[in-house]
Amino acid sequence: MTAFEQLLQDEAREIETVLDRLLPAHARPEGRLVDAMRYSTLGGGKRIRPFMVLKSCELFNVSRIGALRVGAALELIHCYSLVHDDLPAMDDDDLRRGRPTCHIKFDEATAVLAGDSLLTLAFEVLANSDTHSDPTVIVELVLNLARAAGVEGMAGGQMLDLVAEHHALEIPEVTRLQRLKTGALIGFACEAGAIMGKAAEPVRHALHAYAHDLGLAFQIADDLLDVEGDAAVVGKKTQKDDAHGKATFVSLLGLERARAQAKMLTEQAIGHLDLFGAKADPLRRLARFVIERRA
Amino acid sequence: MTAFEQLLQDEAREIETVLDRLLPAHARPEGRLVDAMRYSTLGGGKRIRPFMVLKSCELFNVSRIGALRVGAALELIHCYSLVHDDLPAMDDDDLRRGRPTCHIKFDEATAVLAGDSLLTLAFEVLANSDTHSDPTVIVELVLNLARAAGVEGMAGGQMLDLVAEHHALEIPEVTRLQRLKTGALIGFACEAGAIMGKAAEPVRHALHAYAHDLGLAFQIADDLLDVEGDAAVVGKKTQKDDAHGKATFVSLLGLERARAQAKMLTEQAIGHLDLFGAKADPLRRLARFVIERRA
Repeated sequence: MTAFEQLLQDEAREIETVLDRLLPAHARPEGRLVDAMRYSTLGGGKRIRPFMVLKSCELFNVSRIGALRVGAALELIHCYSLVHDDLPAMDDDDLRRGRPTCHIKFDEATAVLAGDSLLTLAFEVLANSDTHSDPTVIVELVLNLARAAGVEGMAGGQMLDLVAEHHALEIPEVTRLQRLKTGALIGFACEAGAIMGKAAEPVRHALHAYAHDLGLAFQIADDLLDVEGDAAVVGKKTQKDDAHGKATFVSLLGLERARAQAKMLTEQAIGHLDLFGAKADPLRRLARFVIERRA
Repeated sequence: MTAFEQLLQDEAREIETVLDRLLPAHARPEGRLVDAMRYSTLGGGKRIRPFMVLKSCELFNVSRIGALRVGAALELIHCYSLVHDDLPAMDDDDLRRGRPTCHIKFDEATAVLAGDSLLTLAFEVLANSDTHSDPTVIVELVLNLARAAGVEGMAGGQMLDLVAEHHALEIPEVTRLQRLKTGALIGFACEAGAIMGKAAEPVRHALHAYAHDLGLAFQIADDLLDVEGDAAVVGKKTQKDDAHGKATFVSLLGLERARAQAKMLTEQAIGHLDLFGAKADPLRRLARFVIERRA
């Protein structure tokens, strides 16, 4: 394990602890709902989005407690989206991170409610005064996270993805789909530090540009993993894009050009971090990690 | 139509206008998602929860624009919950307000996403600076709405309802279920004015107590409508509680005692409004309307 992988793992463990505290199991009849939320949130995952939050916050010396809360809130949104995307009416997936998906482990109704409740909890976590001492900052976090998760962001991208099953998409459309579906949350993750640290516009813009390029590289890497990955390592079904006839960067560009494009975007993303000096090294390493990972 | 019914209708119309502006249709491929959100939100409904927000805000001379935004945000949450509750995996309803439910009109995947997006939009609407000039107030609204909608509120109540299908509930359990499932949002509606107007604790407590009693009266009235109502007037299937063998206030208390209980709770609710004088008359009339309505 490289030093970076160790750092990633350590931070993931701390986010796991925060998420665990935010989701206390209880014995009441509705405890089944909390069980489903815990099942869908805890127990692994690389926690790449919270990592981006933590490292963008470190650029501005933001309080660690606040950064962890924002990272956890973002991960709750990410986990809710996985629970709902896996539903039979959506992608109909039985396996996630090597375990049965929420609606298989529990049932479909519980999975719908667990997703709803994780989404709701994310905003409750943000709105707590522990997140930031300045309520203006909290309001900006809520606004930006809601936008990133909603129609103009992740949910809109997921809708595009559903519509795309009946249309052959070209590169510009796949790019737009991915910028919404995965890019919007990554954008929030990287801008969170600038919001929390009340950074000036050019600085915030640099982080936005980094997230923009990294988000696409991340998606291309995911598409490559879907084609080249081993289901046992990736922890979910692979080659399902091809089975569904979905247009991906790999199907549109071919393996070689997709790989080159991901590499180019990664270098471009890293270029946007120049103004931060050595402090941004974790974000630089993350960019390289994203396209080199095997799972 | 009584003067009160006219007032209710006028306020509902204004909320409809605000919701319409918050959900601008657009021609992009993901526009189908906005169409489904508009379909599930616009075109009727008594808007009783936003009415409570508007009238509780009037007690404290809160800005009308802010009150309308909070009312609209709450209605978005209410509408999201209806879309998800109607899903085949949940209550499996085909009809709502006399029209096909969202998953019938569109499809199940779109209905899941539309519900998710309405929930997300509610927080975006709250977090806009037009909602209140003081960000501390906005943060408090976000926190309270998230709690009212989440595991300790509406979603937890819905989970209890699902669990209840396999257990015979008694009065205390049905009461707790309804306090969560419908009471929590009603509680937020009535406390919203106090939050927006930065009211003192005893005043806020009086509104909380009003909402507490009214919420239960509201639910008993709903159960009565399910038994006695005419589907054509109510706009959804009636007598489905009995068909599902669900324990309700009516099945547990009988018609006569349920009616008496609703009446008692209404008078109790009205009693909590004494300290507001004539200004609280719309909230008093609402309480009477709730148990007298026929649809």
